[in-house]
Amino acid sequence: MRWLRFMYDGSPTYGYMVEQDLVVPISGTPFSRQDARPAPGAAPVPYASLELLVPVVPQTFYAVGRNYRSHIDSVYRASDPEVKDPERPEIGYRANNALLPHGAAIRIPADATEKVHYEGELVAVIGKKGKHISEQRALEHVFGYTIGNDVSERTWQKTDRTMWRSKNTDTFKPMGPWMETHCDLEAMHTNVRVNGELKTSFQTCDMIFGVARYISTISQYFTLYPGDVLWMGTAGTSPDLRDGDVVDIEITGIGTLSNKVVREPHGE
Amino acid sequence: MRWLRFMYDGSPTYGYMVEQDLVVPISGTPFSRQDARPAPGAAPVPYASLELLVPVVPQTFYAVGRNYRSHIDSVYRASDPEVKDPERPEIGYRANNALLPHGAAIRIPADATEKVHYEGELVAVIGKKGKHISEQRALEHVFGYTIGNDVSERTWQKTDRTMWRSKNTDTFKPMGPWMETHCDLEAMHTNVRVNGELKTSFQTCDMIFGVARYISTISQYFTLYPGDVLWMGTAGTSPDLRDGDVVDIEITGIGTLSNKVVREPHGE
Repeated sequence: MRWLRFMYDGSPTYGYMVEQDLVVPISGTPFSRQDARPAPGAAPVPYASLELLVPVVPQTFYAVGRNYRSHIDSVYRASDPEVKDPERPEIGYRANNALLPHGAAIRIPADATEKVHYEGELVAVIGKKGKHISEQRALEHVFGYTIGNDVSERTWQKTDRTMWRSKNTDTFKPMGPWMETHCDLEAMHTNVRVNGELKTSFQTCDMIFGVARYISTISQYFTLYPGDVLWMGTAGTSPDLRDGDVVDIEITGIGTLSNKVVREPHGE
Repeated sequence: MRWLRFMYDGSPTYGYMVEQDLVVPISGTPFSRQDARPAPGAAPVPYASLELLVPVVPQTFYAVGRNYRSHIDSVYRASDPEVKDPERPEIGYRANNALLPHGAAIRIPADATEKVHYEGELVAVIGKKGKHISEQRALEHVFGYTIGNDVSERTWQKTDRTMWRSKNTDTFKPMGPWMETHCDLEAMHTNVRVNGELKTSFQTCDMIFGVARYISTISQYFTLYPGDVLWMGTAGTSPDLRDGDVVDIEITGIGTLSNKVVREPHGE
């Protein structure tokens, strides 16, 4: 089932997709079954007519930095051959100001260098509150999956002490287009295209530590809440993104997150 | 004016304090003047009877890591004499799962070491959305100020790659008791007491970079939203906190944030 978030009657609203690309708006959130009922008097709306929002605004925005060996090789080991693969799951954070819906433009500040890259990522959305969750039961806490683009300015990533600008500049975190509740993690494939040309392709589950292991580990210290998101890292590398490029991140079984790149001119 | 957040009629509710420690509940939030009106039919409630919540749940939780020279000396330079003072404002992040109201217990996990420390911090709460804010106009974007305790497990802080557990374990971010809208930044003093005994005392504004400079710098890349919080760092150091200790962080002109420390027993 596909769950979306969009503007409806002037307010952010959740809805689910039914046949023929129609979307049924609901009142409340999809994370509580009790609330998830059609909005009073609401008729299904064509998907194509919607003003999409990010599918969820998390209370906490978790992100895994190093979870595919080919990405550690190309991004980290290239400048420091001593970088090791992680020995245990550790989690980082991103910031909500940077979230951007499917279809909206990634805006690169004028003072950024040419080294702006995409990172296509599987995103697990938490559906059920929990702490001290076992690895065996971890996936019961997942509501569904969506797609993230962890846009990164690599020069800032090396010089910023905390990756603040490199990862969290406004519009640097596209997420969407929707949450899919039925996914086969083992069968998924991630394909990233720039202007329609395939640039990066990998098996989504080829992670050093998988979704269940991450949820179990971090929940030993953190309570996970409905709507929290866990970005699972990326593989490979990216060409430098240029003004006008369109980045499509497809994860089979979910869909495609598409965003255009706009470089802000100097002197704005 | 003091703004609080608390449970009222079963829901999180904002209110403001009037004379004789009475609190007037409002509907909406204090960040929008339009919404900030007394809740229909609500009578003032005694402060002492309230179930307090953290005064705001931020969309993005910003935190300054190194902003007082005495703290850089005692925490960072002690293990690495080469650590330099920051040359420009850079910002880090904390996680909402860790937020804890005034009066609630800081719970230290059984596997933490003895090296658990307080950090008494001024917290600026954003009241007005903005980007590309000048330093001159930055304080117009502040709604008010509250107090934070950036509880830190120093052993994990050295070994965790991202400070995930060391800073963000559940209950490690007490914040409160309220937001004060009228503060004289230059006159404030921070006093931290453990079990009533003064342990750390410093002039609050003795920062390397002040509130206005930080807001201006980060808003060159980030949109700041009403309710976002900016924890401004701490001075000095802390003794190791023990089971049963009560930590009071007073910032003159705001109030006192008080939390008891509980060490979770092994085998829980």
